[in-house]
Amino acid sequence: MSTPTITAAQVKELRDRTGAGMMDCKKALEETSGDLDKAVELLRVRLGDKALKMGGREATEGTVQSYIHGNGKVGVLVEVDCNTDFVARNEDFIAFAREVAMHIAASPAVRYVSEDEIPEQDREAELRVFEQQAADKPENVRAKIAEGKLRKWIEEVVLLRQPHVNPDKHDGKTIEELRAELSGTTGENVVIRRFSRFAVGA
Amino acid sequence: MSTPTITAAQVKELRDRTGAGMMDCKKALEETSGDLDKAVELLRVRLGDKALKMGGREATEGTVQSYIHGNGKVGVLVEVDCNTDFVARNEDFIAFAREVAMHIAASPAVRYVSEDEIPEQDREAELRVFEQQAADKPENVRAKIAEGKLRKWIEEVVLLRQPHVNPDKHDGKTIEELRAELSGTTGENVVIRRFSRFAVGA
Repeated sequence: MSTPTITAAQVKELRDRTGAGMMDCKKALEETSGDLDKAVELLRVRLGDKALKMGGREATEGTVQSYIHGNGKVGVLVEVDCNTDFVARNEDFIAFAREVAMHIAASPAVRYVSEDEIPEQDREAELRVFEQQAADKPENVRAKIAEGKLRKWIEEVVLLRQPHVNPDKHDGKTIEELRAELSGTTGENVVIRRFSRFAVGA
Repeated sequence: MSTPTITAAQVKELRDRTGAGMMDCKKALEETSGDLDKAVELLRVRLGDKALKMGGREATEGTVQSYIHGNGKVGVLVEVDCNTDFVARNEDFIAFAREVAMHIAASPAVRYVSEDEIPEQDREAELRVFEQQAADKPENVRAKIAEGKLRKWIEEVVLLRQPHVNPDKHDGKTIEELRAELSGTTGENVVIRRFSRFAVGA
């Protein structure tokens, strides 16, 4: 009987997801021929949910802040991560998170933190529409027009490349520039991890 | 040449999604043989994004509120809807939204507003694990044990059926009971539409 080859990376991923021991993870992967989801199920059955730290991930520090706008019609929740609790409690760090939340509240089109979060198929679908919208333009400029519209769309949906909505306070800097600055002054990685934006009726 | 039969429901759905006129929607659906996504693309090309209210939906009133817990380690954003702006600005209505946000902050397992939001495949996957976890129990009680665990899981992940985390303040009532009460006193539909819960490191 041959056992399938299980890579160290597979074992690590299963450990990260379940918190189970290395040998348990290796065995579960061998028995499920490397199927990660099935291996998770197997470990849940074998070891019980309580023994597993389901969904566990490496410890991160950071802060969750919110901004409510316009009499409760728009609200934003944002998580900004760093390396130590010391920085997570730093006033400037918390202020940055709040400024980001406020910016997102004022930016209804923003959907992603960074450009590489845009799903490839969404980008392609947008480009397809822009190409067709430009179909009445001379052929030699059509692709350029569609590309231009795509760049504009990306600028609207990606948070990091946007100048903060309050340019007077932030010298016209983009969110990415403000983030990099804070990373410099704190000496830690500063990562805008995720955000949610709710608008009533949207 | 035969045109495919387009139902009134299809036309309505396309109108809801794009805000385009009835005849434009009917024509787009005929030309795409009733394919809704393709019809949306066609309308975006034909009428331009600005003419369309993309993602438009029926006007709702409501409020977005947040709750930040434990020195910024957990945050919750919640939207509660009603019928009129008058109620949306009502103190009790806003207080309810905040109490719900606070409850969710204290409830890391909660993932859905109501039971019918649980995807069928998620429910089946959980039941499968519980059945296997009970495999060492006598056969005549196995299904009952798994069913019991599933009910317990549902109670942990569904918001509405949970007693509010502050039973003294709310007489031990569930979120659904508090919601129904508020609906009675305001005379409007009160709907917990959505929530987000961020915890640092989770």
